[in-house]
Amino acid sequence: MPVLVVENKTDGNRAYCTMNEGIGAVLRFGAYSQEVIDRLHWMKNTLAPVLSAALQTKPDGLNINVLVAKAIAMGDEFHQRNIAASLAFLKEVAPAIVTLEGFEKEKPEVIQFLADTDQFFLNIMMASSKAVLDGARTIEEGTVVTAMCRNGHEFGIRISGMGDEWFTGPVNTPKGLYFSGFSEEDASPDMGDSAITETFGVGGMAMIAAPAVTRFVGSGGFHDALKTSNEMLEISIDTNPNFPVPTWDFKGICLGIDARKVVETGILPVINTGIANKQAGRGQIGAGTVTPPMDCFEKAVLAYAKKLGFEE
Amino acid sequence: MPVLVVENKTDGNRAYCTMNEGIGAVLRFGAYSQEVIDRLHWMKNTLAPVLSAALQTKPDGLNINVLVAKAIAMGDEFHQRNIAASLAFLKEVAPAIVTLEGFEKEKPEVIQFLADTDQFFLNIMMASSKAVLDGARTIEEGTVVTAMCRNGHEFGIRISGMGDEWFTGPVNTPKGLYFSGFSEEDASPDMGDSAITETFGVGGMAMIAAPAVTRFVGSGGFHDALKTSNEMLEISIDTNPNFPVPTWDFKGICLGIDARKVVETGILPVINTGIANKQAGRGQIGAGTVTPPMDCFEKAVLAYAKKLGFEE
Repeated sequence: MPVLVVENKTDGNRAYCTMNEGIGAVLRFGAYSQEVIDRLHWMKNTLAPVLSAALQTKPDGLNINVLVAKAIAMGDEFHQRNIAASLAFLKEVAPAIVTLEGFEKEKPEVIQFLADTDQFFLNIMMASSKAVLDGARTIEEGTVVTAMCRNGHEFGIRISGMGDEWFTGPVNTPKGLYFSGFSEEDASPDMGDSAITETFGVGGMAMIAAPAVTRFVGSGGFHDALKTSNEMLEISIDTNPNFPVPTWDFKGICLGIDARKVVETGILPVINTGIANKQAGRGQIGAGTVTPPMDCFEKAVLAYAKKLGFEE
Repeated sequence: MPVLVVENKTDGNRAYCTMNEGIGAVLRFGAYSQEVIDRLHWMKNTLAPVLSAALQTKPDGLNINVLVAKAIAMGDEFHQRNIAASLAFLKEVAPAIVTLEGFEKEKPEVIQFLADTDQFFLNIMMASSKAVLDGARTIEEGTVVTAMCRNGHEFGIRISGMGDEWFTGPVNTPKGLYFSGFSEEDASPDMGDSAITETFGVGGMAMIAAPAVTRFVGSGGFHDALKTSNEMLEISIDTNPNFPVPTWDFKGICLGIDARKVVETGILPVINTGIANKQAGRGQIGAGTVTPPMDCFEKAVLAYAKKLGFEE
């Protein structure tokens, strides 16, 4: 399967993402029906060549930071809501696609798919977050979280001072809204690598940018979103001035979750996430929020203390 | 010049808009250089036929209410900020444009223009507002404002109970930010028919939807936007549940400015507006906010009182 490439120009490293298939019955949520396979073949044989040709007309690629900065002012938090960023992406590539020589049959299909796929930018945001955080991992001290990931069984984090080591604890199950016909009984425990977005400072960490998302978890209104983001700031090392949030008085998004602050305050990162069916092959059945277990942060901080020579 | 047609399906009336040319040196701000004329010819000969053919592939047209509801949750207030609505419009028409038979040379130019023209939706919003308010004018009683308009000299309003009569006062000059090289000394007094958007309940009336716009007028932050919208609610008859604003705890936009409430509270509608050069031929030089004169509201209320038989 072809992938999109995101380059961290500051540090020279790259990260990669498959292209977003949409929601519902999709491979990344475990579905593998003929419809899913057919779509993947179409993405490989039609979407990828057209998008690749269009992107290659731009010698410097697309500036992802600009798209993120635009879209965060348009209510995206980039985990559950990517509608603005996906439109901004469409706006950048549509003129290039239409101008391509050839691909006459494919162009309308590709434009229609990109126009319909509100979450297309999610995967790009994940790869961008990964590229930035792999750059951050070159700083080999401190307790800043450099990855958060889960496999339906354990939740794992890495911190800057402990390199490639994972610190894990048992996963929780997301709370949220379910697609018609599904309920919490059908939900898989927390799963997937998309929490790299929260590690970067978006998703649940940037809830205030997307108050519409708070409605996914029941009572949510603007003040719930504000409260969440203010709490997330307490466990972050700073704000990121590249991405000011108008609804947060133009404060930048949270930058760098500090595992020590998580342990000290007892405040866990909030993750906005899709919910998979616990039965393999069924796909996504809803979306909501979830938190990591405190265990992994405690283990990471204790390991780092030990590395520095402090005894438990 | 071809126009877009907006139909009020509830009341059966229609309104019309020219297509937005972009910002800066454009005819609607008084510029008429060769560049402006050439662009208008291109819009007539290339943009209009392609867009018309694309829209005619949709038997029911585009549902404007849906686009407005989407974009208000993405930080547009539809007078100074139409970036989300313009992208949502692009998303609707791009697949249809690409699929058209013929127009091979024109398609890339049209897609590029729509992708570049962040204010394209403004004119559509103006015509939509006009279509709704002309429907409202069939209610021939009360003091709800059904039009606000200005010509650089006078500001005029109409109210529901006084039919086609205009009530006028001297215009103010907008306060705001100027494009590079221009200042308040170059500014034309308040001018144009775009305040129909505020009459509908968007623009300055929906400031809370677009806190980024408050930066146009100096000190603005989120709380200034909130304060403005809360004040605007005091002079409105209700909120409009079709267009909930996430940043306002999902309250709908203001619905119906009541001239009596304006006079009673002393709160004037806030209008977000472009600023024209006072010298003809130069075009737009900035954007900011302005208020109508209180005179026109007082005159309208007194005239309606007289019509009902009350003496001055």
